[in-house]
Amino acid sequence: MSPTREEIAKLASSPAHEARLLCRHNLVDTTSGLAGDYVQANLVILPSAYADDFRMLCARNPVPCPILGATPVGNPKRIIPDACISSDKDDFDIRTDFPCYHVFSTIESDGKKKVIIEKKTNLLNDWTDDHIGFLIGCSFSFEQALSQRGLRLCHQEDNKVVAMYQTKIPLLPAGIFHGSGFVVSMRTFQPEEVELVRDITRPYLAAHGEPVAWGWDGAQSIGVEDINKVNYGDAQTIREGEIPVFWGCGVTPQFAVEKALERDAIKGTVMSHQPGRMLVTDWKIVDFLKYTQEQLGLSR
Amino acid sequence: MSPTREEIAKLASSPAHEARLLCRHNLVDTTSGLAGDYVQANLVILPSAYADDFRMLCARNPVPCPILGATPVGNPKRIIPDACISSDKDDFDIRTDFPCYHVFSTIESDGKKKVIIEKKTNLLNDWTDDHIGFLIGCSFSFEQALSQRGLRLCHQEDNKVVAMYQTKIPLLPAGIFHGSGFVVSMRTFQPEEVELVRDITRPYLAAHGEPVAWGWDGAQSIGVEDINKVNYGDAQTIREGEIPVFWGCGVTPQFAVEKALERDAIKGTVMSHQPGRMLVTDWKIVDFLKYTQEQLGLSR
Repeated sequence: MSPTREEIAKLASSPAHEARLLCRHNLVDTTSGLAGDYVQANLVILPSAYADDFRMLCARNPVPCPILGATPVGNPKRIIPDACISSDKDDFDIRTDFPCYHVFSTIESDGKKKVIIEKKTNLLNDWTDDHIGFLIGCSFSFEQALSQRGLRLCHQEDNKVVAMYQTKIPLLPAGIFHGSGFVVSMRTFQPEEVELVRDITRPYLAAHGEPVAWGWDGAQSIGVEDINKVNYGDAQTIREGEIPVFWGCGVTPQFAVEKALERDAIKGTVMSHQPGRMLVTDWKIVDFLKYTQEQLGLSR
Repeated sequence: MSPTREEIAKLASSPAHEARLLCRHNLVDTTSGLAGDYVQANLVILPSAYADDFRMLCARNPVPCPILGATPVGNPKRIIPDACISSDKDDFDIRTDFPCYHVFSTIESDGKKKVIIEKKTNLLNDWTDDHIGFLIGCSFSFEQALSQRGLRLCHQEDNKVVAMYQTKIPLLPAGIFHGSGFVVSMRTFQPEEVELVRDITRPYLAAHGEPVAWGWDGAQSIGVEDINKVNYGDAQTIREGEIPVFWGCGVTPQFAVEKALERDAIKGTVMSHQPGRMLVTDWKIVDFLKYTQEQLGLSR
């Protein structure tokens, strides 16, 4: 029998570990707002033959695809670097510690490959000795910074999953991954808040950093024609005078994987998390900010 | 009186130093094909107030804008990291060692800021104690690898400057830099050569890596409507059956600077190299490849 929330709270050695246990036992849906001091992560699991192409894809597209860490090939219980999962590290499993998952496969339809996505609460039957899992940064990691400055987070306020869209911002090709675009997350703000929102989120480079586009013109320019037609997550209620603001999103690799599967460029099973349902890592967001500042040689 | 080519060959302590002296004394136009074992670099010089935004711009857009190094503020005679200029390092000056330069300013025209670009052979009268110079990777650094595999380099064969285009691939915003697109360089190949060209150039991440688009459809998709209408460099002669292949280009920051100047977002003088006329560094290209492979954790 699954433990209750209260039992998990007693068991857990840290807020991040507690969040992971809640996710493992399917007591959490979207992780937006969960364990707000900790970095959250998206997931892509690939057959190892495609790891180099995927690393190159991420290196070329660090705004939507900032790699935070990866499993060794075939080992779902460890992330390198080790600091990613540091509390109760013997109690971690990438196959269970996200709230829920996608498993990708293809069928033939009219002579073309069509991608099928199966939803699962764990990957215990899908992971093999040849799989490698990649953790990708997530914009949930800067949401606390926005709300601490008094900015409204539409999806948290309305108890929805953040809105996500496939766009025509080209994802720069790398090996088998080409021909797809950025996925973006969207939050609504007043036009006069945009510069503040840009400034607050800019330093969170490993969590997609500042927005990639904003305003109704911006939506148009990236190919979001109908703000109510989301590709992932929930459509949002837009209040009087608000405009959409778009960030790179760690669901981008799922779009890239779909394009590669359609071209029959991947043999074996690809897996991911369900958009909006992340892994909570042990990295403190404040430590990530310092690291980014040092790494880039920024003066402030 | 300027030294002759023969005198420079005797003076120089390395092929890279020799190339820099040839450029300093204006004995070189395009540096494509010059000192082919060495990494070449584009240039952007900014007032120091904009250094953080520029570093962030490059971190977010590493394909067109891979930072190789930078001067200390106000010191045109040193690049950090020091390995960039290691032969005769006391004989280096960023203000003279490119073949030729651009100096950007604005005038008022119909109530709008219009950007004026002045061409100069050195920046001795323009550099101030508040300037910082950034070196950005260059696709000339992978050209030798292409020709060693028997691939034709159209601009070298025809004694032209490489063709460059402003595109609608969005340059991801960072601070004052927003609203511009990638600049790309273009080389022509046969369609069946494209996968080989992608494979050869992929590892050269700090020199823009693999192409961002290819083919006539690709040209269309990035907004290159007329292949004969270049924004920088020379239009190329396209042979029977050839298609255009496009790479990120280190002239991209010049396009970003122009957009910022038009919005009056930069106080002080901005400078750059003239497209196609690069700095030859002391970094060996083979060392750069090893570094990239290690840094990304690639298996091959």
